[in-house]
Order: sequence, then C-alpha cells, then structure tokens
Amino acid sequence: MAASVTPPRGMRDFLPAEKARREHALGVIRGVYAAHGFDEIETPVMEDSSRLHAGLGGDNEKLAFAVMKRGLTPDDLAAAAASGDALSLADLGLRYDLTVPLARFYATHRAALPPVFRAIQIAPVWRAERPQKGRYRQFVQCDIDIIGEAGPLAELELLTATVATLDALGLGGCTIRLNDRRILAGILGSWGVPAELRERALITIDKLDKIGAGGVAAELRELGVVTTGVDVAAELESLMNAGWHLADGVVAPPAWLDREAYDELLALRAALPDAAIEFDPTLVRGMGYYTGTIFEIAHPDLGYSLGGGGRYDHMIGRFLGQEVPACGFSIGFERIVDLLAVRDAGRPRAVVLVYDADVAPASLLALKHELVASGARVRFERRVKNLRALLDRVTADGFDAFATVTSETTDASSLAFRELTA
Amino acid sequence: MAASVTPPRGMRDFLPAEKARREHALGVIRGVYAAHGFDEIETPVMEDSSRLHAGLGGDNEKLAFAVMKRGLTPDDLAAAAASGDALSLADLGLRYDLTVPLARFYATHRAALPPVFRAIQIAPVWRAERPQKGRYRQFVQCDIDIIGEAGPLAELELLTATVATLDALGLGGCTIRLNDRRILAGILGSWGVPAELRERALITIDKLDKIGAGGVAAELRELGVVTTGVDVAAELESLMNAGWHLADGVVAPPAWLDREAYDELLALRAALPDAAIEFDPTLVRGMGYYTGTIFEIAHPDLGYSLGGGGRYDHMIGRFLGQEVPACGFSIGFERIVDLLAVRDAGRPRAVVLVYDADVAPASLLALKHELVASGARVRFERRVKNLRALLDRVTADGFDAFATVTSETTDASSLAFRELTA
Repeated sequence: MAASVTPPRGMRDFLPAEKARREHALGVIRGVYAAHGFDEIETPVMEDSSRLHAGLGGDNEKLAFAVMKRGLTPDDLAAAAASGDALSLADLGLRYDLTVPLARFYATHRAALPPVFRAIQIAPVWRAERPQKGRYRQFVQCDIDIIGEAGPLAELELLTATVATLDALGLGGCTIRLNDRRILAGILGSWGVPAELRERALITIDKLDKIGAGGVAAELRELGVVTTGVDVAAELESLMNAGWHLADGVVAPPAWLDREAYDELLALRAALPDAAIEFDPTLVRGMGYYTGTIFEIAHPDLGYSLGGGGRYDHMIGRFLGQEVPACGFSIGFERIVDLLAVRDAGRPRAVVLVYDADVAPASLLALKHELVASGARVRFERRVKNLRALLDRVTADGFDAFATVTSETTDASSLAFRELTA
Repeated sequence: MAASVTPPRGMRDFLPAEKARREHALGVIRGVYAAHGFDEIETPVMEDSSRLHAGLGGDNEKLAFAVMKRGLTPDDLAAAAASGDALSLADLGLRYDLTVPLARFYATHRAALPPVFRAIQIAPVWRAERPQKGRYRQFVQCDIDIIGEAGPLAELELLTATVATLDALGLGGCTIRLNDRRILAGILGSWGVPAELRERALITIDKLDKIGAGGVAAELRELGVVTTGVDVAAELESLMNAGWHLADGVVAPPAWLDREAYDELLALRAALPDAAIEFDPTLVRGMGYYTGTIFEIAHPDLGYSLGGGGRYDHMIGRFLGQEVPACGFSIGFERIVDLLAVRDAGRPRAVVLVYDADVAPASLLALKHELVASGARVRFERRVKNLRALLDRVTADGFDAFATVTSETTDASSLAFRELTA
C-alpha cells in the first residue's frame, strides 16, 4: 500500500532540505524587492470563475482547475448534463497566473493604494497541464509590477530590481534582451501580415528558439499569415543578428522600424550603463496583452531564460473599467531555485544531541534551552546501536556537530561537540 | 462596476502593511521552530479527493472545496445527474487541515525521514464555512508535529517550542492547560456513558465555554448520552475548579481517575518548572483523533486560546498501514497575527525620494542604488502640488524619512532627509 501513496499527479512535496532552499531563495527575493521600494501583497488562491475566464489569461484559461459549487442539487447536475456545460457547476477556480488576480486586486483596493503602486506577488499558481519534466501543475510565480507609471522609470525600476535580486542569489552576470511590440508590428507590416493575423503570427515567431527561422517561415505560410513574396526565413536570420546595429547610423534603419519605440529602448540602455543589454527584434514573449517594451533575462551559462516581462497598458484596468498603465517582470522561481547551492552560508550552527535512554526529559530540555539561546539549532536523536549510520544521516540533513548526552551531563558547557563533515 | 469587484466570498486580500505583518510573524515562527529542531515541509494545496474523504478529517470533510475533473464529458455529467453524486465529478480537493496531508506525506516519504520526525507546516487551508466575523474560507494554519516518539519528550518539545515562539512574538506569559483523553474517558465512565457514545459526549462537553455546565448537562440528557442519576452540572462545576488538587494527597483522588495518565501530566509539569501549567479535566479539544495528552495555550489577557494540540497515536500511520505514535501542536496564526504591533522594530530604514518631473531616470536609479546599498528601502514618488497629502500617505505606509530630488541633485550625500513622524 505504501508505494502507491503519492501527491496528486504533477504536484510535488518538498522535504526539509528542498523546502529550506526554497524559503531561503524567497527570503532573498523578498528582501531585495522590498529594498527597491516594492510592496508585497497577497490574494486568495481562488478567484471567481467568471474573472478567470474573462479572456485575460490567454491559453492558460483552458488550464484552470475549476472548483465545484457547494450544495449542488440533482437538478443542477441534470441541467449541466442537458447543456453539456461542466463549467456551469463551478463558481470558483484556482488562479493560473498572478496577473488576473492583480488586476482584480487593483480594482478592489485602488483607493487605498499609492498613485504609482509597486507590487510584489510571490505565490503558487495552478495549471492542469500534461505533467512532464520540469513542468508542474502547482508552481510558484514571482512577479513585480508597477501600476500607474507610463514613463520609462517603470521599466528601469523593474530591470534594476530584478538584476539586483539575481545578483543577491548568486546569479550575477545576466543579460537582458529587449524588444518592443510596436517594432514587431512594424516587421509584420513589412511582410504584409494583416492586422487581424498579427497575434497569430507572434505565436509562431515565439517558437523561433525551438523550430528555427525555417520552421517559423514554413508555419507562417501554411497558416496563410504571410502570403507576400517576402523571404521570411532570411529576414528572421538577419533580424536575429541585427542587435543595436539595426539603426546605429552605420546601416540605414529599415523603413518599418518604429523609431519612437527604438529610441525608447536606446534610452533604457543608456540609463543602465552597468547592465548587459541586447536588442532582439525577434523577441516576442508569450502573452497577448503586451503593448510596448518586452524583456527577457538570461544567464550566459544557461540555455533558457530566467524571467521576463513587459508593458501591458490595456489590461490592469479591465475590472476597473478605466485604463491604467502597467509594466511587470516575472522571474522563473522554479528554475532559479534549482540553480542555488543547497547549503546556505548564513544559516545558524546546527547541532545534534544524541541521548541515552536514561536521561531525564527535563535535563534534555535544559540543554536545548541553553544551546538555542546561544543561537544554535538543536535536534535530539536517541542513541542507537549503529551510531555511524545515525551520524551519516544527520550529516546529510545538514547538521554541523554532535555531542552525546548521558545521565552525568550537567549543562551545555560539559558537552563535547564533535564536528560532522559531509 | 468598481464597487462590486471583490475577492471571493469569505476570502481576503492582504494589502502591503498587513502582508508585511504576516510575513514578519511567519519569519519569527519559522526561526524559533527551526532552532528547536523542527524541519519545515510543504505539500501541494490539493490532495486526492478519496484521501480527503477517508474519515480522518471529522466534520471538516464536509467543508472541503472539491476540484472538478478536467475533460468531463456529457456522459460523465449524465451519470452524476443519475446518481445525484456531485462528488463523483471531483478527483481532487483543497485540504481543510494540515494533518491529513501530513499523514499522506509521511506515508510517501517515510524512508527519507529520520526515525523521529519533527515537522513544521505553515500553510493555508480552505473550508467552505458560512463566512462570519473572524472566520474565513482561506486561512493559515501553523502546525508542528513529532512523529515516531511515543514518550513524553514529544509533548515537552512541542510545548517548549510553542512557548518560545509566543515569547518571541511578544506574547509572553501564556498559560498551558493540560488534560488527557483517558481521564475524560474515566469521567464519562463514572457517569455511566456507554463507550460508543463517548465521542458524542465529548462534542457536547467541548461546548462548556459557550453553554456552561447547565447547558452541557441538559444536552447530554436530551441526547440520551447520560441516563444515570448523576448530577452532571454539579460534577462539571467541581471538575472545572479541581486543578491539580484533584489528586494532591489532600483530597482523596476519585476512583475514576486514570492514575497513569495523571502521573504523566504531573511529570510534564515537573519537567517545565518555568511554565504556567494548569490541569483541566474538562478540556476536550475538538478533533476525534486524539488518544492521550491534550493541551491548549492561552494568554491571561485574552478570552480565547492561542492554540492547542495533543497526542494522536492511531492516525498518522493510516495511509502507511502501520501505527506510528504522533503528537502535534497548532497555533492559531490568524488570531496571533491580529495581536501583533503593526510596526516592526527590526525593519530597515524606509525612505521616500520625491522627484521633480525633469530629473533624468538614470539619476534617480543612481540615487536608489546608493541608498539601497547602504541598507535602506527606497520608494520614488513624483512631486505633486499637495506635498502634505503625499507625505501623510507615505507616513501611513510606514516610511521614516523623505528627501526631494531636483535636477541639481548629484548624489545621495547631497539629499536633505527630513524625518516623517506618524
């Protein structure tokens, strides 16, 4: 029976070492973001079903876990069977991202928030995806958003806070890739893509990493998104290598280049002289709601991005019924936590007291009291025959030293600690 | 429209000040419990529906939020309508406590855990209760459990760790009330309550606080639980005032008193000479799974308990198919966090930079960089006409000082900070 007891499909338990690593990373992230002026908020894990399915979540809406209404009657069930609409039995759902809840939160509490609101959200989200390596049905998202700031200070604050956070986690030397949705629109226009097919085209271009320029070109033709004579594969290859040279005065800027957007990107680069910033006109970022700048952050040693975000000016005000500028950055917490060293240098000294069966519990407690007061973390272990195995186990658990307690032990100063070395 | 945008019924958003207070309290609790040798774990918020409805959750099982299966077909809906069984459409549910998940976790991971496992779980749970003041449908539980220790060291470690945590939160001077389920069984035996009605009798006695000795006596008669001639109200009154005098040698101990259980409670008291420990033979604690010691902790200034727990030796091994001794303590996080002062003495200095519209974003970032490096928390605010209102707002947000930034400002040393006083 024991072998079959597992957490639900696609979801994980965290044992002590892994949980400690996660909490350590969360503490660092919280601390740096707070220092940079962001304020943490929290919303319930559930939102009303109608809000989760209001068209703001893109493809993720289909992956939402639905929570059934309480007290459903046979009539309710019969009505759902007649209509074939299972969702009619649900009134709530688990959030699939932190952006829809943020838009709802902002609409609920706007009067209590500062005119420019810098939010931190660090919390789990749920998606009923087909489980696969590195993809989970419950995972933590880690978002910062600036709401109410239309100017570039929003992008700059997000980028500097994120770089500082990654530095503090030991992931220094990251590179920022920048683009702007308006520049992408210019490219698509030059290929003759009709306005109503642009979103569809971007979904394909977003696969560039996976299927290459040739694959993207083929898919765009197949879907009928590009019907003009343009050589999409060649154009993409050239754009991927363009970088800041696209309009540096050496090469004449292409006619389709949105100069306002490009100049804004140049200004971001100028304001962050210490950061490694690349311009990539083929960068898309998945979500359909982006309206301007988009960015992604990556470490040169890794083949994947550590986070990304962008400006989404038409979304946050959806539940408010009024537009509010907004810009956000999400770091990939699950990816980042996997990169961190298990041992945390700053943690307190952890000691194990191995006690004989005849030691009075009160004596053990007195020793623990003394050691905890001196700043140590203390675990009791009853003495067993195979002491070696016990010590190996507590060493693996991250303990630094052990001492044996007998009925002769009077106080902590009489304990002879021996170091444990992993 | 804005007025109607709210979180789901019975659930709460946390704005920055409240969220900071909660995270501060969680940090203190985590730190003290870890120092006392407990290890934090985490499980998914959902468990398989069949585990949540395995009879371990008592009345809470009825309050579980059910998560619908994905991809339900019209046939599935028709079958549920025919059977009237809505739950057949759910395969998962949100946990209503942290004990059922702990039992499942222990069965899954026992081989990787130490023989005596000291667990911390701090996480939200969900119950579809009728919302009312102080009762929420999502709330945080904060449990420590010791699994695999049959002796009193378990109770003692739980109690000392909990008292130390409450002390660290500024809630010193708490009183511990102790009892043992075996003593309650003796009392019920002396009233002639049949064994099969004991659980039911305990549910009524648990209402002593609310309905008094007379109310309990009446309900026990009404339910047919007590049919003998005993004066239950008088007995309860006398038991409520008995305390340690019940068997102190001055008064002869009653024949029904389970001496083994009572002697164990005396030993707990002796091992904790610095704690205020009362014996209350009428203490029940709600859950049906307790098997031995039960305890509750309260502050003399407050009319409600701050937490409680007990020994439950027959439960944790349910999914393992083998008995494992266990003892746990749950502190009432939502109650405790309401008692804490909003301002946290140990937090970093928080400053506001009020900037003129013509200051370059790069200059602002340079100032922020300098101030954050010096250990401050920094927020930007654009200068507005009504500076007084702005300063009142940031003071309310907990900021300590402000300075204005103009295009003349060169570096942080040229900023003239003025203190903000609440």
